Amino acid sequence: MKRKPTLEVCLSPLLLHLFEPKGKVVVIIDILRASSTICTILENGASRVIPVASLEECLKYKDKENHIVAAERHGQKPDGFEFGNSPFDFPREKVEGKTVVLTTTNGTKALHMSAEASHIVIGSFLNLDSLCSWLKETNRDTVLFSAGWKNHLNFEDSVYGGAVLEMLKNDFESDLDSSLAVRYLYKNLKNRMDVAMKFSSHYKRLEGFGVSKDVDYCLSINELSVLPILQGKDLVDAYQTQDHDNKGTSF
Amino acid sequence: MKRKPTLEVCLSPLLLHLFEPKGKVVVIIDILRASSTICTILENGASRVIPVASLEECLKYKDKENHIVAAERHGQKPDGFEFGNSPFDFPREKVEGKTVVLTTTNGTKALHMSAEASHIVIGSFLNLDSLCSWLKETNRDTVLFSAGWKNHLNFEDSVYGGAVLEMLKNDFESDLDSSLAVRYLYKNLKNRMDVAMKFSSHYKRLEGFGVSKDVDYCLSINELSVLPILQGKDLVDAYQTQDHDNKGTSF
Repeated sequence: MKRKPTLEVCLSPLLLHLFEPKGKVVVIIDILRASSTICTILENGASRVIPVASLEECLKYKDKENHIVAAERHGQKPDGFEFGNSPFDFPREKVEGKTVVLTTTNGTKALHMSAEASHIVIGSFLNLDSLCSWLKETNRDTVLFSAGWKNHLNFEDSVYGGAVLEMLKNDFESDLDSSLAVRYLYKNLKNRMDVAMKFSSHYKRLEGFGVSKDVDYCLSINELSVLPILQGKDLVDAYQTQDHDNKGTSF
Repeated sequence: MKRKPTLEVCLSPLLLHLFEPKGKVVVIIDILRASSTICTILENGASRVIPVASLEECLKYKDKENHIVAAERHGQKPDGFEFGNSPFDFPREKVEGKTVVLTTTNGTKALHMSAEASHIVIGSFLNLDSLCSWLKETNRDTVLFSAGWKNHLNFEDSVYGGAVLEMLKNDFESDLDSSLAVRYLYKNLKNRMDVAMKFSSHYKRLEGFGVSKDVDYCLSINELSVLPILQGKDLVDAYQTQDHDNKGTSF
């Protein structure tokens, strides 16, 4: 019998190398809010999202036709940007057919760190089912990579990792204790996630910026059907593209 | 009002620097089995435990009067050693009044990494109450340092971290999500720990070596009243010594 592929969760960027991501699928998880916002942008009809590392690089696209530039630093929108990192910044009427160029504190860094992966996709509660279906179909060793907060473990990203592991427990092998721990965490909290999340450090940070509406939205499950996948330098919807294997990361 | 000291959990040696352990209390956690075995050795009347890094260093003490040398590598007792890392290797009749020189895979490394701490103590389920009382009395910023397994998060050490955090939640501040996560984990599992632990990777490894009796013992709560603390190069019982502040680590 062919062995099942592995599915493990990495809880900090500092641990990623332990998971040997080269040639594996890497799922970037940054629930509050980069993952959730990217899913929303593509669901609302943007043709692509270009993740970039720096504010400067982002601003280069500012006057390009059909481009929107968006940024977040330390949970807030920096000066000079019309669009931040809130999913509500990107309704269909603003983004349909457009290219959104986005830079965030943790999410973009996680993307760059995963450059050797065979596929890089974006997971959020909003597209949980879409992600899990795609992972099952793709059937490769997979790392759920929590972007964390300044290299620390992130509560909502950990719980989300547990949700994916729970959904795919019959299709993948998960031997590491981090996977076991987040699966227990998710199973324990899934019916009271909204309450539990309010104790998380990032919720508290964002609450200070008045974005609890964002948080509620980011924790809702299966609102969206997209699966952002990196092709070249662009994140596009995997379900709108033909070729899963043609990634060609070129950071 | 004076602020409460902080209490956070570090889930991998690769993350320790994020917790800035210098000048703080560090609790070394290696439930299976170094922490539990060290507590047992001191409870059974050994005058001290000397943790050393290498098998060679350990063997230097072999013919020294009143000394016992003990070692573990990859969960097993290496050739040339009469004593391993099982708590049952050290009954009172063998260790009373003796010095035990011990080297283990993860536990000793964690001790060395914590050299800049103000105090280094050893935590296990066996001495949970003793540890918590001492931490409360000492009232300093504290890092619960899970030794992990090859830099990965360790399930039983994480759950234990959650137990300490839960017991001290009114006496310390814990702002990090890793602390929140392990506290939920502990609260969820405390009444079925024996079952949950059987899914952990280290349990499976040790079970292969036929040491499930060790595991049952290591998960029993408050069997012992010692608190191993590092003084110079020796681990001694903090409750048998007068001066909490005289640590003088000299690795």
